[in-house]
Amino acid sequence: MTQPPIGEFERIARFFAPLAAPGGLGLTDDAAVIEGPAGFDLILTTDAIVEGVHFLSDDPPFEIAQKLLRVNLSDLAAKGAAPLGYLLTTALPKTRDEVWLERFAAGLAADQARFGIGLLGGDSVATPGALTLSLTAIGRVSRGAAVLRRGARTGDGLYVSGTLGDAALGLRLLRGELPPLQVAASTFLAERYRLPRPRLSTGRHLVGIAHAMLDISDGLVGDVGHLAKLAGLAVVIESATIPLSPAFRMALAVDRALLALALTGGDDYELAFAASLDEAASLAALDPPCTMIGRFERGEGVRVIDEQGNPLRLDGEGYRHF
Amino acid sequence: MTQPPIGEFERIARFFAPLAAPGGLGLTDDAAVIEGPAGFDLILTTDAIVEGVHFLSDDPPFEIAQKLLRVNLSDLAAKGAAPLGYLLTTALPKTRDEVWLERFAAGLAADQARFGIGLLGGDSVATPGALTLSLTAIGRVSRGAAVLRRGARTGDGLYVSGTLGDAALGLRLLRGELPPLQVAASTFLAERYRLPRPRLSTGRHLVGIAHAMLDISDGLVGDVGHLAKLAGLAVVIESATIPLSPAFRMALAVDRALLALALTGGDDYELAFAASLDEAASLAALDPPCTMIGRFERGEGVRVIDEQGNPLRLDGEGYRHF
Repeated sequence: MTQPPIGEFERIARFFAPLAAPGGLGLTDDAAVIEGPAGFDLILTTDAIVEGVHFLSDDPPFEIAQKLLRVNLSDLAAKGAAPLGYLLTTALPKTRDEVWLERFAAGLAADQARFGIGLLGGDSVATPGALTLSLTAIGRVSRGAAVLRRGARTGDGLYVSGTLGDAALGLRLLRGELPPLQVAASTFLAERYRLPRPRLSTGRHLVGIAHAMLDISDGLVGDVGHLAKLAGLAVVIESATIPLSPAFRMALAVDRALLALALTGGDDYELAFAASLDEAASLAALDPPCTMIGRFERGEGVRVIDEQGNPLRLDGEGYRHF
Repeated sequence: MTQPPIGEFERIARFFAPLAAPGGLGLTDDAAVIEGPAGFDLILTTDAIVEGVHFLSDDPPFEIAQKLLRVNLSDLAAKGAAPLGYLLTTALPKTRDEVWLERFAAGLAADQARFGIGLLGGDSVATPGALTLSLTAIGRVSRGAAVLRRGARTGDGLYVSGTLGDAALGLRLLRGELPPLQVAASTFLAERYRLPRPRLSTGRHLVGIAHAMLDISDGLVGDVGHLAKLAGLAVVIESATIPLSPAFRMALAVDRALLALALTGGDDYELAFAASLDEAASLAALDPPCTMIGRFERGEGVRVIDEQGNPLRLDGEGYRHF
């Protein structure tokens, strides 16, 4: 989801990781893996969104429903799983009327048709506080084939699907924090923020190819850091190779500092994964293309370098040259 | 969970039932059934609790954790399933500190050991509003053996496990709404409110015996009404046969109107099920005993009758004779 507060990972490690079942992967992954029907494992993942934190009170309910569903489907995509269905829990304040609910359900219906899934169950409770929506998605993958966050190998390439930074840039444009772009570019970027496109077919294609994978929700650098840490490796990102959309490039031409949005902006919901360098050409030919943007190597941590191999550093205004 | 607001079932029927997948049982059940590993089906159920609605701000976090887990395990019990694990989503206000979280996690750990399950995954988000906890429990039952809410037959007995009304009476005692009982009785009743005991072994035993089953969370009359409605039948409850604890009987001796708490009070988390009349003796020998308290017959609706076969009616103060 969006940037967790400082201490989020610590909190999980300290209080909840000791409670993890074997299928819970030590809570270091975004999903659980349990044995499924003959020849399959089932993937379970859950993500919640809260009014005033992950969406605004007056956001259209049709799109809130789609975003809720899609951020969960994106977690299934990152395991290489095909979605089967979902459970939905709504905690609704009294201020939400039937018109709101009808549009919310219509958003779910539209995406159920798009992704070929259905509602399996859920709960509906009242709340005196913020509208809170929690969804558990269930997917399926061939037995033993789920791609985990752990598993990157020394010498692997770091790849990403699609283009990065669009959603973070779109959010800033929607907020009026940046000078407007051409209408078509602004519309594209805003759409990228509003509606994640879970990379389900790409994820399924990557089963047997990706050694480790996740979806980028909190920003490339932080999320790729998880892949490196779980593998006990370092990762180097070549910033000049990060795939950027034409709309993003238009904005970047005016302000180079916006590159930081592709590195740390979040809400991309693209896949980041480790795979052999040999796969680069065939992965680039996929739709959307998957682009090699770095490598895993001995060591620890994430380094971001420019075209000349010089490290970039992050400060309050984004990544800059030393 | 606790009493849903009026319109809850309408809301589900109108907006969410049209979205149901085949495994979702039309959202008329408390759980979903999907194909599991060889010879098994998996049961998925989800229940949320909200501060100020389902628990109070200063309730002990150790017990909040146990209640959250147990209300979900009770749903698994009602399917005849053995629990495998769970996913947990916490939406925490900033006011909850590490001491609170530590006690909350300790409550989960205690019940994980008790019920032999582990944490599979989850999500942790911030909220500006009420503390909201959502849990998805996963259980397992032999393929095709899950006991559903639908399936009661004409002539079946209506059975319940344990004793009814204790939790509702305990809540009223905790709130000081009733004159105090002896300490041992008050303690027993308060405990019955605070900590549901999911009837997992009873539920598993009832696979192949119960034709339809649910756990009583919203009150006997309303919940048994669901069993009747889904079967297209009527159900008659003989109020004099409802199993009551010694502590409940002590209170009832002072005020007969308290019988209403056993009929509509809620939070029992006992099992109610339809089974052949022939099972009465062997079911009464279980621990806890299962007691026949009525019958399913042609017609519709729920009737409650006294020892003489006269109908009781519900008014603002409880069930009374006509």
